[in-house]
Order: sequence, then structure tokens, then C-alpha cells
Amino acid sequence: MNEFSLIDVFFKKPALARDDVLFGIGDDAACLRVAPGQDLLVSTDTLVAGVHFLNDWDAFDIAWRAVMVNVSDMAAMAATPCWLSLALTLPDNNETWLTRFAEGLHAALQLYNIALIGGDTTRGPLSITMTVHGTVPEGGAVRRRGAQCGDTIWVSGDLGAAALAVSLLTGSDMDSADQSILMNKLKRPRARLDLLPILRSYATAALDISDGLSADLNHLCQASALGACLSLDAIPVHPLLKKHRPDQALDLALSGGDDYELCFTTASADKARLLAELADMGLSCYPIGNMVKEPGLHTASGLLTPRGYSHFQD
Amino acid sequence: MNEFSLIDVFFKKPALARDDVLFGIGDDAACLRVAPGQDLLVSTDTLVAGVHFLNDWDAFDIAWRAVMVNVSDMAAMAATPCWLSLALTLPDNNETWLTRFAEGLHAALQLYNIALIGGDTTRGPLSITMTVHGTVPEGGAVRRRGAQCGDTIWVSGDLGAAALAVSLLTGSDMDSADQSILMNKLKRPRARLDLLPILRSYATAALDISDGLSADLNHLCQASALGACLSLDAIPVHPLLKKHRPDQALDLALSGGDDYELCFTTASADKARLLAELADMGLSCYPIGNMVKEPGLHTASGLLTPRGYSHFQD
Repeated sequence: MNEFSLIDVFFKKPALARDDVLFGIGDDAACLRVAPGQDLLVSTDTLVAGVHFLNDWDAFDIAWRAVMVNVSDMAAMAATPCWLSLALTLPDNNETWLTRFAEGLHAALQLYNIALIGGDTTRGPLSITMTVHGTVPEGGAVRRRGAQCGDTIWVSGDLGAAALAVSLLTGSDMDSADQSILMNKLKRPRARLDLLPILRSYATAALDISDGLSADLNHLCQASALGACLSLDAIPVHPLLKKHRPDQALDLALSGGDDYELCFTTASADKARLLAELADMGLSCYPIGNMVKEPGLHTASGLLTPRGYSHFQD
Repeated sequence: MNEFSLIDVFFKKPALARDDVLFGIGDDAACLRVAPGQDLLVSTDTLVAGVHFLNDWDAFDIAWRAVMVNVSDMAAMAATPCWLSLALTLPDNNETWLTRFAEGLHAALQLYNIALIGGDTTRGPLSITMTVHGTVPEGGAVRRRGAQCGDTIWVSGDLGAAALAVSLLTGSDMDSADQSILMNKLKRPRARLDLLPILRSYATAALDISDGLSADLNHLCQASALGACLSLDAIPVHPLLKKHRPDQALDLALSGGDDYELCFTTASADKARLLAELADMGLSCYPIGNMVKEPGLHTASGLLTPRGYSHFQD
């Protein structure tokens, strides 16, 4: 099977019908129509074998995770994801692997009505780069820099489970039910697109905390030229961390990435109304502190050093 | 230097000011505004070390070539490139390499007024994926499928020089002046954006012939449900091929890719007018045959087997 039949068999087939895709795979570029009054949001993420996933993972999970990593960036901007390009570099032409990869890819895309519009397949060490395109009403993108002094800081869900799962990849004696819950958090994350209406109505700033809450919240603080005062008791730590790693639980929740939850800020006057609205929607988000003038991450026990994942550490 | 300062130092600095970039690097996604009445074109290409370039190349050339490979897809659709995302996977943090890479990247982008809007940096085997975004007046994208029976087939310039240069990478006794001309064709190609007005006015179909003329023209034929009748004498073979490889010259021109020239079709009635217009613009394009009903690539000496570069050959 050569490059062209590979694309036909695995990627062209179950193309989602979207009116705004004039044409997709099969020309030198895809042609898309952005609706009038919408801004276009674009984000790219690469997943490298051995760094962002392990070679022995089910290719379904690798594809699923790659989509979610990208879509999470759209959620963080309050954008609706529409179209995705896939650049797939493969060491060989393993059809079993490709079948599972395509299944995971299409399952994840279908969940959010995202069309696969094209990409590239090349030979080389296994690596996946996706570029996701989304739209937001003109001027409606939520950025990192919009937080105001006094704003409430929110986290969209329990943290630390994916970080604990990463630590289990090298072996563990945990019971298999708990282990499978944790692995599922790592391998099958869900981007928080369910928060779009909330973010569009309330958020003054937002970002994806895939590098870890403390590192990413620090980026939001720097972009907004403010600091954060956090109540460590309010950080939503995943219950299995408290059960299996009580000593490291808070630290994993603060610095472990990969959960694909969001952190956002809202005017403090909106807090009660937002809590009520979240309850109506059956969603849990957690207020964890407030934006303050002094730079840095402040807690009752002193300044918190932002820690998280960064490639190319010295 | 970590991932964030790497982005600041090498990629954020010389950002091109374009009014349609609301914001670029620094948030979870870039925010762009497509002008009313324009369609959006998106194309992705990956270059892998050892496959699409060699590790010992000047990183300026690697970046330049990566941009041109992507921009060439925009030229083929008659689209104006606007924005580019870069996903860069690096084995280490070599600042000398990154400095040259950034120089080549920005030089190539500046040539066409393309803004670098974001991307991702990861650690892993050297590989570069770019996604380029362009615009075209609504409905104006030139596709592979539009050719009509009788249309004139054109090639935008001399072919085969890059393929000959590839063969020299493993050593040669060619004189250094000729060798440097050929290497320049391989390492510093130019996307044929100068043909945009011609394509928009005349082309019924077009595509990038980076996989080799015969393979790519065959794609155009298949997409248009037609065949091509070619005059082999009319194929523009690069003069250095005739000088150094007279026996393989035509074959390299027909099947060697990497020149980043275009192939396009126009109504046969437009041929004389187009030749005059090209002459006025100081451009040379070569009519090499006509579209015909019978599928396949026909020549005076029989059917031509489409040959070119494809990853994942059996």
C-alpha cells in the first residue's frame, strides 16, 4: 500500500459532512469557508512516541489523545472546533496499527463534529502533529491576558489522575480497578467543550492546564500582569490520589499535567450565579482563589513555585 | 533554555505585522480574521530528517525548503498564503542550529508576507511540520479536477535539477559551479506565487508537481477523469541535465520531484493570449500537451508509466 491508497483507505473514508468544507482530502489544500462574523482560531500540537505516549499503547488511544490535546486548546479559547489536519509520520506501514489509529481518530472527531480536512503522511520515527481550526463569534476568543484583580480563579475538574497514571506506567501494585480508572484518564481524556457556554458568558481569561496547574496558572498571571492567591484546600485533587498517594496528592494536582482540564477567571460578582448555573448544567467547577496585584502564586503557607512540564529544560 | 524562552527568542521576535492576525504566539491558539468574500485554504507538510533533508544541511536551508514546500501548495490552488503554524521536533536544544533555522524561516516568510502564528516545540527525532493557511476569492480555488478535454497542459519551469542534485548528495565529480547551481535548486526552491494572476485568470486545473511530473499529472488526469497527450520534446528539461546526464535527462525531468514547479491546464483557445501575457510578465511556462478522453499519459512512443516519489511503497 502506498501513501495515496493509505490515505484513501484509512483517512478519506468516513469524512464528516460539514457544509463549510468546500473540499478536503484530494487536492493540494483543503478549502473551507469561515462564516461571516466569526474569527478563526488555529492551534497545533505534536505527540512524539516515547515522549507523549508509549509505543505499546493501543493506537486507538494514541489518536484519541492526540485529538483531545488539540481540541482542548479550542475549549480554552471558548472556540468551537471545526476542522483538523493530520500530519502522521510512521516508521512502517502497519495496517493493524493504522486501522486502530483511524478508528480512534474518527471516534474522537465524530464526538465533536470535527471534519478531517487533510494532512500529510511521511516515513520516519512515529510522531503525530495535528492542527485544529475552530471558530468563535468575532472578538469572542477568551485569552490568557484578560484576568482582572479580584477575579475568581476556577478549575474545571479533578486534577492529578493523569500524572499518577504516568507514574504507574513503569509498574505498580495498585488494584486493577483503580489502575484502569487512572489509565483511562491518561489515555482517553475529554476536552472540556462542555464549558463553552460558561466560558463565553463569564470568563475574563482562560487556558488549558495540560502542563500542570501551577505552571499554567502562572502563565495566565503573567499574561494578565497579576498574581494569584490560592486556597490549597480548595484545589480539586482526584480521589484516587488521596487514596493511593496521600503524601504526594496535592503536589501531583498542582504540578502534574495531562488532565486537559481548564483554568479560567470570572468577575467575583458572578461567582454565586455561576455556581448556580454550573449546578443546573450538572457540571462541577471549583473556585480555588482570586487574582491579586502582587505577582506570583500566593498561599497561606507562602509563595508556590510554578512547576510543570516543559520540553528542553536546561 | 526551556520551551517557553526558546519560543520567545527564536520565533516570537520578528513577527510580521498583519492586520488579520488578531493575536498569534502566546495563547492556546492564534486568532485570525478571514476577510469577507474569501475562502480559506489549508495545507500541511512534514519534512523528516534523513528523508526530506539531510542532518548536515545548513538549518537555514531546511527551514527555507520547509516553507516553500508548504507555500507551493497554496500557489497550486491559486491562493495567497497568509499564516503559518510550525511544529518543530528537535533532538536537543542546539542554539546555533536554531538561530540558522529561525533566520531561514523568517527570510522565507518575509518574502511572501506570511505571519508565523504559532505551533509547538517538542523533543524527539528532528522533524518539521508546517501548516500554511491562505485565502482565495470565494469559489476561486483552482483544483485538480477542473481540466476539460482539449485543454492545454502547461509546466511552469525547467524540471529535473533538484532530482539531479539529490543524486549528487552521495558524491560527484561535477565542477563546483554547476554543482552549486543544482544544490541551490534543491535547497532554496521558490514557490511559484508569481503565477497567481495567471492561474486565477486562466487555469482550469492545477497542482504542485513536487512528486514528479508524470506522477502528479496523472493525479490531475484521474481527478479530471481524462488522460493527457504529451509531446516529450516539449518537456522543459533543465539545461544542466542535458549537459551532465544526457541519457537520463528526460527521465529525471518526468519522474524527479522536488522542483516545486506547477502543472496547470487552460482552455486551448487561450494558449496564444497566455503565451503573450507570460512574455509581458517576463515568465516562461511551457505547453507540453493536451488533455484527451483516453485515460493515461500518451506520447508518440506509447503510454508513459507515471513514476514519482511516494512514501510507503510496497
